[in-house]
Amino acid sequence: MERIIATYFIETPFDVEKAAQVLAGEQSSGTFVAIPGETEALKERFAAKVESINLLEPAYHPSLPGAEGYPVYHRAELKISWSIENFGYNLPVMISTLQGNLYELTQFTGLKLMDIDIPNSFAQHFVGPRFGIEGCRNLTHVYKRPLIGTIIKPSIGLSPDDTAALVKTLAEAGIDFIKDDELQSASANSSFEARVDAVMEVINRHADATGKKVMYAFNLSNEIDSMLRRYEYLIEAGGTCAMVSINSVGLAGTKKICDQGVLPIHAHRNGWGMMTRHPLLGIDFRAYQKLWRLVGVDQLHVNGIQNKFWESDDSVVRSIEACRQPMLGGYEVLPVVSSGQWGGQAPETYRRTQTVDLLYMAGGGIMAHPDGPKGGVIALNQAWEGAVKGLSIQQTAALYPEFAKSVAKFGKSLSFMSN
Amino acid sequence: MERIIATYFIETPFDVEKAAQVLAGEQSSGTFVAIPGETEALKERFAAKVESINLLEPAYHPSLPGAEGYPVYHRAELKISWSIENFGYNLPVMISTLQGNLYELTQFTGLKLMDIDIPNSFAQHFVGPRFGIEGCRNLTHVYKRPLIGTIIKPSIGLSPDDTAALVKTLAEAGIDFIKDDELQSASANSSFEARVDAVMEVINRHADATGKKVMYAFNLSNEIDSMLRRYEYLIEAGGTCAMVSINSVGLAGTKKICDQGVLPIHAHRNGWGMMTRHPLLGIDFRAYQKLWRLVGVDQLHVNGIQNKFWESDDSVVRSIEACRQPMLGGYEVLPVVSSGQWGGQAPETYRRTQTVDLLYMAGGGIMAHPDGPKGGVIALNQAWEGAVKGLSIQQTAALYPEFAKSVAKFGKSLSFMSN
Repeated sequence: MERIIATYFIETPFDVEKAAQVLAGEQSSGTFVAIPGETEALKERFAAKVESINLLEPAYHPSLPGAEGYPVYHRAELKISWSIENFGYNLPVMISTLQGNLYELTQFTGLKLMDIDIPNSFAQHFVGPRFGIEGCRNLTHVYKRPLIGTIIKPSIGLSPDDTAALVKTLAEAGIDFIKDDELQSASANSSFEARVDAVMEVINRHADATGKKVMYAFNLSNEIDSMLRRYEYLIEAGGTCAMVSINSVGLAGTKKICDQGVLPIHAHRNGWGMMTRHPLLGIDFRAYQKLWRLVGVDQLHVNGIQNKFWESDDSVVRSIEACRQPMLGGYEVLPVVSSGQWGGQAPETYRRTQTVDLLYMAGGGIMAHPDGPKGGVIALNQAWEGAVKGLSIQQTAALYPEFAKSVAKFGKSLSFMSN
Repeated sequence: MERIIATYFIETPFDVEKAAQVLAGEQSSGTFVAIPGETEALKERFAAKVESINLLEPAYHPSLPGAEGYPVYHRAELKISWSIENFGYNLPVMISTLQGNLYELTQFTGLKLMDIDIPNSFAQHFVGPRFGIEGCRNLTHVYKRPLIGTIIKPSIGLSPDDTAALVKTLAEAGIDFIKDDELQSASANSSFEARVDAVMEVINRHADATGKKVMYAFNLSNEIDSMLRRYEYLIEAGGTCAMVSINSVGLAGTKKICDQGVLPIHAHRNGWGMMTRHPLLGIDFRAYQKLWRLVGVDQLHVNGIQNKFWESDDSVVRSIEACRQPMLGGYEVLPVVSSGQWGGQAPETYRRTQTVDLLYMAGGGIMAHPDGPKGGVIALNQAWEGAVKGLSIQQTAALYPEFAKSVAKFGKSLSFMSN
């Protein structure tokens, strides 16, 4: 029978082998007192198994509260497996099994789910991203370079007409993609429907005139019925993308939207920091992105090089690589690079990932360009042309005047974080 | 206009006032470069406001990575408010606003959402728990004492007939409530429907014979359509409770199930440790339980006194108190006390919370009682009788023989954690 293997990074003041057995027991057939029903046959079929223990450098202080005062806190990489018979193709129950109560065990002063080996049979049960990289390229007619995108800012407060006016400016500037901010779904002065009406009129008119249809990710996030109504509304209006704040909406709700199958789903991972920022708590992006690819999102946020958040470049690079790794022979997802991006990060992003299969998002980096948004979009495309040619920021700036202006303006402002 | 106030516990190496302004800006109308659209009128209406800053004892090492090497890490309680106009009555967008990207800000080396002040108008938009404490008592005919419950163990692996046989034993033992383990929803040898059929036949027959209908929380957790089908199946079979792993299913999916309104919803919070175990990351139960009461769950896990997990008794007591605090004049939720409970914790639980409005769950504590499950259920009821009388464990044991046997067996086994 197929087995799912989960890889954990753990810390424990107890014997690692025993702690691993507690983990496996707690998440399968065990309980804290021996009870009659746990027969050998049942254990053989349903018990989780400790597949391997790889000891790492220990620590001398606990990472999390719950077991203070021990001399040594062992650290290890554990691999634990479960038979697919335990939960079948039920992702919520799989999550309850692979994560669930584990974070509460006193045996562990640190536990992070690092990776999940998904068995092949999942391919028969999960369609995955309906659009993925190729589908998003076909809808935007953007090939052989990243899709260039931006976020409507201010995040919240613009009226539908204000938003539509901004979209018009951006469309005329040549942008490929625009999204609502995750703070905006329906505010007092911008209902979802009114915003769709106003924005899609601009986008459709621009598409009729130029042949280029800007992809706009409207933030559907809400309860199920509302999201389904909004989804239909969006299709009627000629929309080509819907955004969901996946952590806030949750897995079942997001999957219901992905399963509609008509629009690519832009997965915003806000809330993600809570699940991953601590090195020994939560879930690593390698495991996380697999779950969401099974759910079927088409675009998934990965942060960006030299971002304005806490995340290191190494971590961002690993996230992009994780998304690009084929899963079960497919399940293509488009990594969304964002946070403090203005084009200056393009050379390093390309140097380290060697891909242009990205949705590259800049906010202020486009809107606040000295030549206006048009200059901003041109500069971003120039940044990527330079990056793919292997040029440095300086070399690219020497070649392209709009990008040179970005460097002059934003090259400095990036240091705002350090004061 | 009404405002929602969020209380945070934060840590920052930067000026606290400035960091608070970044928080408010990031989660409303701000961006990292000044842009034309953020007018004064817009800011006045939609900008989040720093309501108060209460400085606490500083730390000298960062709690989370992202800003190392500073001499002092200031800690503070911040109150930030948003106009209800920003997101209306949309819980996912409210979560994206109050939590969202905040955990990723470099400005904070620690951030935990401690509480949310929900404005009164929410009462017009969220029905909340349809059953709550009173509804669950009416369905089980249990009054003036905790509902006594247990979990089917082994967690996973029993066939529907095995499960039904166990339920028969437990029903005859006088139990009020039984639940699937969160690891079990549909395993290879126990489909949801077959388990409902087998278990409800026992429960219905026992109810016909005795007038006492055991409440069984079947684990619905899955994708939306499956959960809705299972919900209907459960109603048809005469079921009186459905369980959802709320973190794994997510908010929108859980709300859809709560909104069906026919069955009380047992909310299992597995995965919760990831969100709260670190003192300076995630969300405190005080805030968390408000969100889920708005969603409408009827029973919510709170762990238990002297539990087998990492959580301190003080924290458990605060959680029970949080659930008992009326919200918007109601939104009653039944706290589910569990984890390593066997009755010995009843005196301390009652002494500290002064309530019997609890669902008190014991696993091995019932099944492994020396007199069998019947002795276990009797002993738990005795434990609570003693507790309400203000008796100690020893005084209760002197009065009640079945409880005395629990003390003899489990009073020791609790020390298993310390080796």
